[in-house]
Amino acid sequence: MNSNHTPLGPKADKETVRRHNLSLVLRAVRDEGEATRAGVAARVGLTRAAVSSLVEQLLESGFLSESGKTFSGQAGRPGTVLKVTRSGPAGIGVEINIDYVSVCVVDLSGTDRVRRLEHLDNRGARPEEVLARGARIAARTLESAAEQELYPVGVRLALPGLVSGGTVRQAPNLGWNRVPAEELFARALDELRSEGAPLPVGSENEANLAALAELWFGGLGPVVTFLCLTGEIGVGGALVLNGELLRGAHGFAGEIGHVLADASGPLCRCGSRGCLEQYAGQSALLRAAGIDENAGVLGVSELARRARGGDARAVAAVELAGTMLGRVLSGAVNLFDPDAVVLGGIYRELMPWLSPAADRELTARVVSGLWPPGSGRLRASSSAGDAARGAAALVVREVLADPVAYVRQEPGAG
Amino acid sequence: MNSNHTPLGPKADKETVRRHNLSLVLRAVRDEGEATRAGVAARVGLTRAAVSSLVEQLLESGFLSESGKTFSGQAGRPGTVLKVTRSGPAGIGVEINIDYVSVCVVDLSGTDRVRRLEHLDNRGARPEEVLARGARIAARTLESAAEQELYPVGVRLALPGLVSGGTVRQAPNLGWNRVPAEELFARALDELRSEGAPLPVGSENEANLAALAELWFGGLGPVVTFLCLTGEIGVGGALVLNGELLRGAHGFAGEIGHVLADASGPLCRCGSRGCLEQYAGQSALLRAAGIDENAGVLGVSELARRARGGDARAVAAVELAGTMLGRVLSGAVNLFDPDAVVLGGIYRELMPWLSPAADRELTARVVSGLWPPGSGRLRASSSAGDAARGAAALVVREVLADPVAYVRQEPGAG
Repeated sequence: MNSNHTPLGPKADKETVRRHNLSLVLRAVRDEGEATRAGVAARVGLTRAAVSSLVEQLLESGFLSESGKTFSGQAGRPGTVLKVTRSGPAGIGVEINIDYVSVCVVDLSGTDRVRRLEHLDNRGARPEEVLARGARIAARTLESAAEQELYPVGVRLALPGLVSGGTVRQAPNLGWNRVPAEELFARALDELRSEGAPLPVGSENEANLAALAELWFGGLGPVVTFLCLTGEIGVGGALVLNGELLRGAHGFAGEIGHVLADASGPLCRCGSRGCLEQYAGQSALLRAAGIDENAGVLGVSELARRARGGDARAVAAVELAGTMLGRVLSGAVNLFDPDAVVLGGIYRELMPWLSPAADRELTARVVSGLWPPGSGRLRASSSAGDAARGAAALVVREVLADPVAYVRQEPGAG
Repeated sequence: MNSNHTPLGPKADKETVRRHNLSLVLRAVRDEGEATRAGVAARVGLTRAAVSSLVEQLLESGFLSESGKTFSGQAGRPGTVLKVTRSGPAGIGVEINIDYVSVCVVDLSGTDRVRRLEHLDNRGARPEEVLARGARIAARTLESAAEQELYPVGVRLALPGLVSGGTVRQAPNLGWNRVPAEELFARALDELRSEGAPLPVGSENEANLAALAELWFGGLGPVVTFLCLTGEIGVGGALVLNGELLRGAHGFAGEIGHVLADASGPLCRCGSRGCLEQYAGQSALLRAAGIDENAGVLGVSELARRARGGDARAVAAVELAGTMLGRVLSGAVNLFDPDAVVLGGIYRELMPWLSPAADRELTARVVSGLWPPGSGRLRASSSAGDAARGAAALVVREVLADPVAYVRQEPGAG
């Protein structure tokens, strides 16, 4: 964390310092929601004159807006109220999962402004087709965003597999191997858009992005070190350490779905046996409950309905998944020592039967009584914790970190 | 951490800069082994005049020494050769394990200068007695160090349990619960020392310190993200992420010995069942091989001797431990995505039988072919990777990070 006051960096040029300070001021206003110049100056530790000059530039570039409304600060004359603009630069996240595509546009304040969710089956289709499908949904979302004067400056893809350097190394449930997802998506999106510069496309594992969304918007309070599991057809996992994603040496950390739950268990699509996914993945759960494993989201609702009604087979299926989750999680907790474990995706709906079984294993197996019964450290994710929103928010964070890099000519301006 | 001896600038931030730069120069010389002022200036990016002034202070305070020897640099006049002093400030590490105490003094260059190892049984004795025993061994080591004009400025304890805030929350194999280890050790050591200020005492889990020693002295090359297991009576674990220990939310990360290997396995001292320690801990291994499980280090040598001789029971015991290690490690690798897994302690001697079995499981169970057969990513620790040396080196790192805080009046000087 650089401070602009210390003469430690003798070579930091004025331009670098100003760009840094513009970000500081913009983020201060974002964090406060509403702020005066004086309030910002107090918060960031710059002079009021310096803040005023920075605010002018942010107003001119369309990152901040100002309202005539005033309120009395604790000292000095009242100032006009600054806010982050609800229009202008934004981020778009595109989650391409096994049986749905979810798209989200997030504005500079972090609010999700446009959402689109389509249930469809992405298995069987070629990766090019699946990514082109995602690009079509994204392009329509961009049109809706433009109607609200929101202009995403970048796309982030959320993908259910091992993602690194723009490529999906493997996504077993999609049948993808070494798919250059960013490139294929970017090409498809460019062909669909009639105007504007090509949007830069990034990509990331979907569970990682769901974890970031949970961190930023999920109301976790002081919890900044946690494990996040997303139950889908696959079981995604992510580790957040002091508010940062733990990516590991090659970017593939968090593959909890393929951690061993039972060495003699059923064969898994990954080639191993008895992986967690074989007990707690969507298909395994539905199958064990006697529900069509391809019934998708409706199948999960049906499972929850039956469990609520006391159907023994449904309850047993979810409890077995909970036990296996608890076993694998106890190992992960012993290794990683998180503050909390967050269960998202299909697990949210199944918590009443999943959670006690998992908690029992955690209590029995986490060392030294560190997981007392009913600790509350196992929790359902919030509805905000979804990968598309995390993906869009990641783009927004890049804007906030260096707004000057994203100054944009309005279409038709100049 | 007070620095009232030092004639630094009147402004706090100038002093901060100078202290920072003193550390920069000292570490540059340490990294180079031998250096000229010009070489240091080129390396750290300060002017030669600034470096000369900093070097003078480090020479006067006894952190650097200068030899008359010269060599011709690539430009300018030859300079005298600077080295980190082999005497003066140092660190002392004290590993108190279940059946031994190991003490190490490390000088500023990172070299281990004095070592002491005593095999004894720390089970059964009260924590106070065990820590007093460690303090006696440390006090004698300090006397040997003083004969070499090495003056440790702090002690770091390496302890086989959950360590946080100076207290051992639990060390099941020692039978310790909530033992204020730092305080008890410091009191015992102070009573034994006739002169000098009390030494500050810190503490850390022994596997964490072994991992740091492996990182700093083990010749890992580019590997900075790895898992480190120490086989002893317990099985210690540590995770290093980009060259930093991963401690988790409460400081207890890395407890791999109590990760589940088989849900229906034998009861463990921790209260759970089928923990890795029940297959790959020293007692379990010896027992499975038909060797007295209390035979300690001699028992492990006997186990290796029998395995080398082809004794079927010995080979089977080590292979079972390897298989269970591989199962648990495959989960840890899927979660954490390290560059390497390092096996230390008793595993070093057992690698010929342990490693193929573990590698087989890793190859089968790590996702996406990320652990190809014979990848070489599973390796024995180096002999340098021991906890006492890591503990001592951690003290030295603190000195290198802010040498001014450790300026010392030589005994008898004045």
